[in-house]
Amino acid sequence: SGNNRISYNSSASAFLHGSNYFFAVVYADLLPALDGDAKTMTFLQEVVDILLAYIVESFDRETKVIDFHYPNELLQLNNWELQHEPATLDDILISCRATLKYAIKTAHPRYFNQLSTGLDMVGLAADWLTSTANTNMFTYEVAPVFVLLEYVTLKKMREIIGWPEGRGDGIFSPGGAISNMYAMLLARFKMFPEVKEKGMSSVPRLVAFTSEHSHFSIKKGAAALGIGTESVICIKADECGKMIPADLERRILEAKQKGFVPFFVSATAGTTVYGAFDPLIAISDICKKYNIWMHVDGAWGGSLLMSRRHRWKLDGVERANSVTWNPHKMMSVPLQCSALLVREEGLMQNCNQMHACYLFQQDKQYDLSYDTGDKALQCGRHVDIFKLWLMWRAKGTIGFEAQIDRCLELSEYLYNKIKDRDGYEMVFDGKPQHTNVCFWYLPPGMRYIEDKDEKKKRLHKVAPVIKARMMEYGTTMVSYQPQGDKVNFFRMVISNPAATFEDIDFLIEEIERLGHDL
Amino acid sequence: SGNNRISYNSSASAFLHGSNYFFAVVYADLLPALDGDAKTMTFLQEVVDILLAYIVESFDRETKVIDFHYPNELLQLNNWELQHEPATLDDILISCRATLKYAIKTAHPRYFNQLSTGLDMVGLAADWLTSTANTNMFTYEVAPVFVLLEYVTLKKMREIIGWPEGRGDGIFSPGGAISNMYAMLLARFKMFPEVKEKGMSSVPRLVAFTSEHSHFSIKKGAAALGIGTESVICIKADECGKMIPADLERRILEAKQKGFVPFFVSATAGTTVYGAFDPLIAISDICKKYNIWMHVDGAWGGSLLMSRRHRWKLDGVERANSVTWNPHKMMSVPLQCSALLVREEGLMQNCNQMHACYLFQQDKQYDLSYDTGDKALQCGRHVDIFKLWLMWRAKGTIGFEAQIDRCLELSEYLYNKIKDRDGYEMVFDGKPQHTNVCFWYLPPGMRYIEDKDEKKKRLHKVAPVIKARMMEYGTTMVSYQPQGDKVNFFRMVISNPAATFEDIDFLIEEIERLGHDL
Repeated sequence: SGNNRISYNSSASAFLHGSNYFFAVVYADLLPALDGDAKTMTFLQEVVDILLAYIVESFDRETKVIDFHYPNELLQLNNWELQHEPATLDDILISCRATLKYAIKTAHPRYFNQLSTGLDMVGLAADWLTSTANTNMFTYEVAPVFVLLEYVTLKKMREIIGWPEGRGDGIFSPGGAISNMYAMLLARFKMFPEVKEKGMSSVPRLVAFTSEHSHFSIKKGAAALGIGTESVICIKADECGKMIPADLERRILEAKQKGFVPFFVSATAGTTVYGAFDPLIAISDICKKYNIWMHVDGAWGGSLLMSRRHRWKLDGVERANSVTWNPHKMMSVPLQCSALLVREEGLMQNCNQMHACYLFQQDKQYDLSYDTGDKALQCGRHVDIFKLWLMWRAKGTIGFEAQIDRCLELSEYLYNKIKDRDGYEMVFDGKPQHTNVCFWYLPPGMRYIEDKDEKKKRLHKVAPVIKARMMEYGTTMVSYQPQGDKVNFFRMVISNPAATFEDIDFLIEEIERLGHDL
Repeated sequence: SGNNRISYNSSASAFLHGSNYFFAVVYADLLPALDGDAKTMTFLQEVVDILLAYIVESFDRETKVIDFHYPNELLQLNNWELQHEPATLDDILISCRATLKYAIKTAHPRYFNQLSTGLDMVGLAADWLTSTANTNMFTYEVAPVFVLLEYVTLKKMREIIGWPEGRGDGIFSPGGAISNMYAMLLARFKMFPEVKEKGMSSVPRLVAFTSEHSHFSIKKGAAALGIGTESVICIKADECGKMIPADLERRILEAKQKGFVPFFVSATAGTTVYGAFDPLIAISDICKKYNIWMHVDGAWGGSLLMSRRHRWKLDGVERANSVTWNPHKMMSVPLQCSALLVREEGLMQNCNQMHACYLFQQDKQYDLSYDTGDKALQCGRHVDIFKLWLMWRAKGTIGFEAQIDRCLELSEYLYNKIKDRDGYEMVFDGKPQHTNVCFWYLPPGMRYIEDKDEKKKRLHKVAPVIKARMMEYGTTMVSYQPQGDKVNFFRMVISNPAATFEDIDFLIEEIERLGHDL
């Protein structure tokens, strides 16, 4: 057993300064230095010990989620400047400790701030291995195993979407925004392949459609691709945040009457703020009728496909031409891990390839279809697959399902607990479809203000103050934002597998403790 | 001291199957499980032991660079399929060992295949820490230290470029291709800010210029941005691969006469194949004269700015509007680490921002200029800064300089050794400016063929066969490609800090050993 090697030291005084073994050792003593083996092992083990102590501490509810400091303070708290001369490895270890001391503990059971929270131990191990392998996804030649695992995993994801025999294409990209932009790029190329050579001046005015609650990356993509943000038409959403199909059809017809060419509809499966799922079947009928590429932005909600209990929320996803699905969100795969899945084979290659002869030599000894680099806009591409693949092995499909179901159970618990509680108001009616629970907390002194404008004005300031206090105390972190005419409200999301019912109870108490005097 | 914790086991038989401690332990026993601490520590330590053994082995010249298998073979060599049920942690450890067994050893002193080679021990430690912190660069709130370190490091890089007091802007992006695309996006926005809202239909036909030897990402970017590959005009390069400024000016005038609007020149500092540096001063004069954005693609050559001996090759870089510089190449920072540096402050934000209110709340308690997410097309952004920053601390500026100078010295050694050697022909005359050494190897039986076409035809097949044999023996890896009318030649590049003069000698002997019978 490896038990004798456990040695973690989380006492506060010893944290910044560990042993002094490295005070005279410098990077030049490490591998590839001759006889650098022993020093390298000792140095890396020392770093690992720091990391292991940090991990154990991160899961401990008694520690802070963050030891927060303002930027100008943090700049003073350590010497972060880059120097002309090398530091000792002892100084390097101190820098590692300092970096972690002031970092967010994203593994902490009470860290709810983003759609990506938590730290999976198998995923982490896989990411350490990925760093150690230090290679690039562009060719089979330099990443044989990773390229195969990407192939295996993308096929599995397409099967889960419901495409026959998992056929189709796909790629892991650096985040959902880029995956969505790739989808838009493919849609444009599919309709007007000449755009690749001749640019937008060769095509009519294109328009894209997405709901007013969709992610801002759709507009960013349109701006980048030379389509322009004004050509992204925002479709009305109902009060729960779902796109209204009738409004989509109306706006498509309107655009066509103006002589514009509708080419892309991005439906959202799991909106960022409300967690709403657009009605995919109705949207796909409209896309089919008008011959428009249907994309599903499932960056946040796509993972519900892994759950037999919740996948109905994405019914119709198999009719999409492309799907964004970020395992780094609801499946807790370490950052980053975002997939774009595409129904048509070969399109990505045709759309993006430039045949760089120094990379994709045509006379290699192996099957060139495994050289995936020319499918993407990136040349080099980070290995994002191994952490997802290894976690999938470790959990099985049913393990991911259980983890996702559990997060949804927790959010339902939160919703049930606050929906009729004194001082809480829900931002929209009805049980949330994803783990997003959106609500206002009204401090006692604000509950009976008659003047509606005055009340709104004061309520707008509540969430930012509570949030700032959460960070100063370091007890928990939740996000807030305004939306449309709705003043600042909390958006609680649960993707953290470490969270429990008690943590939800704690969150409510903490909001009330930090906000009751406002 | 941590010496007692060294325990690496690289014997072949023990490699795939280590201890059996984990045969009954599954992921659900690890953190966040109650009392999961000890099992988690033991599991992670077991993974680390596998990684440490792999690292030591990787630097050993007696081991293979790769244990190569064809894709269909590799698929059979292990069970890579994803299952419904969880595996044991013992199986997870076996998967880790199998993955590394068939991986490329990128740390190997004889791995020369890409512009990114080698494995830096401090960079690796930093990447392990980054994975453990598992956060996102979009806001200060969730990555306080990393955001500050990015700020500090980008400023230092701008100082090294030569911009007054390091002023300007920048971002780390997922690779040089994306950095180059960002530059093109900024150039277009600077000249026609309305393009963001109105798209390409609101602007005249734009044209970009780059040398015929430049990286294919310039064309990929133009295709994506709706400019079109035909609007990227390839400027002639001289026989050493440098852009000919007179041809640039001629083509700019030609484009203007046609009514097109030149908006972007991408000069290359270190071309991919020849390692050529375009004459930046002459190009900047032309850009200034015609009011065109000057970008320098220094993905490969930018790191020479760290060397007092070699930085003259980039003289004039301080006149550029933007510079791509990939520390993951010549500075051996683990993949990925690519910076785009921009001279004008605020432009990136204006070009890309969409003001997502759920992420970039305007009423946060801290200075919002540290929320960098809206500068990029990405929403979430991987932490690529820490490994560069920590390596810089460990080496100092002078350590990077020494490492770069050393690689250039090795390539000069190779050049001097083969330029007059029997059976070698250089692809271009003169000492290479970067570490790229491009050459043909002519097996003895091919040296006296009179028929030039026949000779070319046979020579074209030599490099692919030698390369395939290198991979089958696993002794070394070098890249080859054709270029223009030049048949397949070897492109040796040296960015691997583990390489020595003896490894260069070995490479030459190995090419001759594997190719003499052809």
